[in-house]
Amino acid sequence: MGPGPANVHPQVLDALSKPTLGHLDPQFIELMDEIKSLLKYTFKTESEHTFVLSGPGSLGMEACLVNLVEPGSKVIVCVAGYFANRMTQIVSKLGGHVVVVKDDWGRAVDPQKLESALKNNPDTKVVAFVHAETSTGALSNIKLLSEIAHKSGALSIADVVTSLGAVDVYVDDWQLDAVYSCSQKGLACVAGMSPVSFSERAVHFVKNRKTQVQSWFNDLILLGSYWNGPGKRAYHHTAPSNHYYGLHEALMILKDEGIENAWKRHRENSTRLISKLKSQLGLEPIVPDGERIPHLLAIKVPEGIDEAKVRSELLAKHNLEIGAGLGELAGKVWRIGLMGYNSNEKLVDFCVNSLKDVLKK
Amino acid sequence: MGPGPANVHPQVLDALSKPTLGHLDPQFIELMDEIKSLLKYTFKTESEHTFVLSGPGSLGMEACLVNLVEPGSKVIVCVAGYFANRMTQIVSKLGGHVVVVKDDWGRAVDPQKLESALKNNPDTKVVAFVHAETSTGALSNIKLLSEIAHKSGALSIADVVTSLGAVDVYVDDWQLDAVYSCSQKGLACVAGMSPVSFSERAVHFVKNRKTQVQSWFNDLILLGSYWNGPGKRAYHHTAPSNHYYGLHEALMILKDEGIENAWKRHRENSTRLISKLKSQLGLEPIVPDGERIPHLLAIKVPEGIDEAKVRSELLAKHNLEIGAGLGELAGKVWRIGLMGYNSNEKLVDFCVNSLKDVLKK
Repeated sequence: MGPGPANVHPQVLDALSKPTLGHLDPQFIELMDEIKSLLKYTFKTESEHTFVLSGPGSLGMEACLVNLVEPGSKVIVCVAGYFANRMTQIVSKLGGHVVVVKDDWGRAVDPQKLESALKNNPDTKVVAFVHAETSTGALSNIKLLSEIAHKSGALSIADVVTSLGAVDVYVDDWQLDAVYSCSQKGLACVAGMSPVSFSERAVHFVKNRKTQVQSWFNDLILLGSYWNGPGKRAYHHTAPSNHYYGLHEALMILKDEGIENAWKRHRENSTRLISKLKSQLGLEPIVPDGERIPHLLAIKVPEGIDEAKVRSELLAKHNLEIGAGLGELAGKVWRIGLMGYNSNEKLVDFCVNSLKDVLKK
Repeated sequence: MGPGPANVHPQVLDALSKPTLGHLDPQFIELMDEIKSLLKYTFKTESEHTFVLSGPGSLGMEACLVNLVEPGSKVIVCVAGYFANRMTQIVSKLGGHVVVVKDDWGRAVDPQKLESALKNNPDTKVVAFVHAETSTGALSNIKLLSEIAHKSGALSIADVVTSLGAVDVYVDDWQLDAVYSCSQKGLACVAGMSPVSFSERAVHFVKNRKTQVQSWFNDLILLGSYWNGPGKRAYHHTAPSNHYYGLHEALMILKDEGIENAWKRHRENSTRLISKLKSQLGLEPIVPDGERIPHLLAIKVPEGIDEAKVRSELLAKHNLEIGAGLGELAGKVWRIGLMGYNSNEKLVDFCVNSLKDVLKK
């Protein structure tokens, strides 16, 4: 019950161990088509440039940036946590010129700050931000951030690693140009895959870049030829069939539930957890109401408590893993996740009772 | 029985579906240490810069190149097939200056050509080559190629994707500076992971680069801090625990057999298959004796045979997948693999008998 990986749905674990199909087997090609269609459902997009990368969410972050950032081009990154900060490192490695719009850790991105940064930097090509910042528990209004980016003629990149499948994400309606996620949080699958989606605008940009994309593995055009053709698919990498079985199963389970129902379930269990943590343990989330990720709570560690000791005791005594703080919040918070298969009443109670025992309340 | 993925050992499939551990769980950290130690055994290296990348072999190819190639630096790639050709594309995307040493598809790399290319290009920083070229079935003498590269002061990169675990690979003795492999061939695991190893020379080079490594995900120094410390491991990406369970199991099975015994088994089953294909079906490998990958045979398609039809019939009627030709060899060869778990007498006979039936011999 940390910030992910979350526990995996048992049907997904079963699917992983089915006999391997070759990546060129007609049955496997069908499976890829189904995954694509299920991801379009999950992302709420009609874009054909929707598929899964054969690596974890950080690979997806790099893929979105490497395609949309040319050396020397200006990129605004809205930073209010660890993962947005990682984006600035990647942009710098790609030779982009980073402008940081900074907010406090534990708060949503302030859209007005982005607006004024764009006024000062009208030559900005890309604006990048994180929807649900896993390191702080804060949720930003990326619909608005994307709108502001477009008004200034920039493309938008959104990290939906912790939001996808657990809280509202509308890639087309919000006009997000590039999004990436992971498999091990809201999707209730194992870690190691990164669903991505690119808008027509993004694809047009990549096709008309002045410089080559600085990656072969993450090149959107090469990946698109593999997933979409035209005609016979062009071989790219050897797709990890067994991982894809797991993702397919996880996406089917999500579709069977209905994604709006899944969002609702995540909200309800979050409310239940917050209320019990407050009333029974006096624990409070650090993120203000209205800016909070429902399913990933950063909880303030009370004065005088050794937070690492509490986590080891929870693991040793109750077989319960919760997360530590990262970066600026290291030592100051616990991060409790109710994601995917883990978002249920039974685990809410289990978590509260285990914490009660360890904190001797 | 194509060029990979090969069938996966049943114990490996079982391991994949064990409950997920968090990537920071102490038990998982132990598993990572064991994987590292097993990979050192498999690569025949003492290098601490030995670990697994959380993506397929092509990611490993990109990782080796992105760390050792700086924009503008000269790289010789020995090309005698599809995968070496991919290396040239990556070098070009990274802004390196590629010099190609070309040999015919289906032949080993000619060391003399490399020697004269290095004479003409004494400013070469890196020499890259493929050990077992999956697209043609040819095996090169990479010990000698690496020696030639070092004489000229260049670093060596070797693709051991199809060789690792199935045929002799001695990373330290052959002084290979960067090697990458995959999980789904000689290691009998599922696809999606790329074991890599870097020499001290390579690490020294990366630490002293004039420019940043153009990738965050594949940055050797960041990956090294995650796998090796110093001290507390620095979080990098979320390691895909379940995939690592599979790899751990596969490497344990290989160590139990003894890697030298595994190499011997691959040689013996290859000899058996070639002899039966010749005597019972009149089929011949295209690669001359002494330059051949034992466990991946490119077999000449006889005149007048529709090669694709044979492959679909083998799949439909016998549930047997063999590979098609790639690139220059498309339509001209079948590629039959006897890799990892698939390298056994029973499958040799099954393959010969199925081909006999479909070819009506």
